[in-house]
Amino acid sequence: MIFSLTLNAALDRFLYTDALIEDDTVRVDRVKDYPAGKGVDVSRVINELGGHSVAVAFLGGHTGKVIEEMLDDEGVVYATVRSEEETRTNILVQTGSGQYRMSLPGPVISVKEVYKLYKTIDVLLRKDDYLLLCGSIPEGVSSDIYAQLCSRMRKIGVNVYIDSDKEPFSKGVEAKPRGIKPNIHELQRLLNRELIGEIDFRKAISEVSNKYSIEEILLTMGAEGAIASVSGEFYRIRVPKVPVKSGVGAGDSFLAAYCMYRELGETVKTALKMAGAASSAAVMTPGTELCRFDDVMSLASKIAVEAL
Amino acid sequence: MIFSLTLNAALDRFLYTDALIEDDTVRVDRVKDYPAGKGVDVSRVINELGGHSVAVAFLGGHTGKVIEEMLDDEGVVYATVRSEEETRTNILVQTGSGQYRMSLPGPVISVKEVYKLYKTIDVLLRKDDYLLLCGSIPEGVSSDIYAQLCSRMRKIGVNVYIDSDKEPFSKGVEAKPRGIKPNIHELQRLLNRELIGEIDFRKAISEVSNKYSIEEILLTMGAEGAIASVSGEFYRIRVPKVPVKSGVGAGDSFLAAYCMYRELGETVKTALKMAGAASSAAVMTPGTELCRFDDVMSLASKIAVEAL
Repeated sequence: MIFSLTLNAALDRFLYTDALIEDDTVRVDRVKDYPAGKGVDVSRVINELGGHSVAVAFLGGHTGKVIEEMLDDEGVVYATVRSEEETRTNILVQTGSGQYRMSLPGPVISVKEVYKLYKTIDVLLRKDDYLLLCGSIPEGVSSDIYAQLCSRMRKIGVNVYIDSDKEPFSKGVEAKPRGIKPNIHELQRLLNRELIGEIDFRKAISEVSNKYSIEEILLTMGAEGAIASVSGEFYRIRVPKVPVKSGVGAGDSFLAAYCMYRELGETVKTALKMAGAASSAAVMTPGTELCRFDDVMSLASKIAVEAL
Repeated sequence: MIFSLTLNAALDRFLYTDALIEDDTVRVDRVKDYPAGKGVDVSRVINELGGHSVAVAFLGGHTGKVIEEMLDDEGVVYATVRSEEETRTNILVQTGSGQYRMSLPGPVISVKEVYKLYKTIDVLLRKDDYLLLCGSIPEGVSSDIYAQLCSRMRKIGVNVYIDSDKEPFSKGVEAKPRGIKPNIHELQRLLNRELIGEIDFRKAISEVSNKYSIEEILLTMGAEGAIASVSGEFYRIRVPKVPVKSGVGAGDSFLAAYCMYRELGETVKTALKMAGAASSAAVMTPGTELCRFDDVMSLASKIAVEAL
């Protein structure tokens, strides 16, 4: 079974308006809420693709309940670790010319709540399961939590993947997860240097892989597709041009599809092809909407995966 | 007793951030929620000034409950007419350079809910009470509701005031309320022509007063103070320069203080002086915060009310 973990879940509220005008009131024509947070996104993508996963997440207050109802409606299985403080609502304003995204402060998680999370993970996960540690860390939680969870779970034979950024990511990497899925910015921050061009990217991937013994590195590069290093083999994933509505969720879709097809026993190449299709399909949907099944299936044949 | 009516209540959520950047995510440092809607504001001002009123409002869902809790905390008495749909949350973004205000769609009010409102008003209000009809009209409610309520309540001797805009206001005016409190823009829209300068404003007030037999017209003009016509007498209210934080709620504060002091039996001049002080004090507070008692009292001596 695949388990996604979201420590910093959110409700993404998209406001649709013609324009924002300073010191004036504008009418919002439409409001659309989406459950959000990287791990939640990963589980929603797996669900959309017909797979199974459990979204483990800190959720609290009324907003937490709303997210649970949305996941219920979609048929996503979840295990809530209840937080006393309210889950945050991010505000995203879509105008005629562009998107303004505001990340709001979230709840402070207590030591007791972190303990409940550990217990939940310990009870749920078993050998050969997948644990995907996704996104940022809420206030009150130590930045080495991904490292701690990774060490703990690898010991019992769980396949751990980390998709995060900054300190939680760099500390997590040192705990030797089976896989990581950075984008270019996150890989640059991990190595603390600028990377330019594919040769540089491959060098960087080899460096991280060797230094931390990480078996699978999935580097997503937006419209440029992806480069993957799996068990010492390099793969280049090329994606077709698609009409771009919103880049939100493309990386999450990539990781979700890759892990889902690997867990189903598919080859690395097939898993990477479906990952490329899922991330391309995600950019075709507006807002925080993720990929749609039909788009993924029709794009799959247009994804080129070549062993380098 | 004074009753304010808010058909289109809202929670105003202020997000504080350095700047908004197109197609980028910015961090919101602080979030502050205020109960809002013109009638709710009026009742909060009366409460702050030590007076008594009942805020009658459509409230629904979790947001409605949050507004009730906030009013409880402040000590504002309210009579909720429960709506099935959720009360809206407006988004206001305060950046270093200015304010962006987004007015979100609210609940659709059902015929049954309008009937409940009428019943509430009929049960609560008695002869010589004040009914302040404030703000815009939610979807599902006829634009002549202020006119209907005004006719119904005047029959039993209730003093009706309307502070609204566009169709609900123009129809309401025809039902001959005792008073109205437009700002310059609202008065222009009511008369469907541009007004320039004080002589023009006075002519317009006389015209509306004569045409619709409206005894009290309170025209608020921002930093320029106000002009009032009460029982055929004209008054000019001049306000001092104050440090401006946010103009939100100044007009509501004016109407609230005026009606409160009239109901207490004060002279027109005293009521207008306190109204000027309350509206000036309101602009000194940030966000949707209204006037503070101490500011109103210290400003009162600086307000000049002269009979024209």
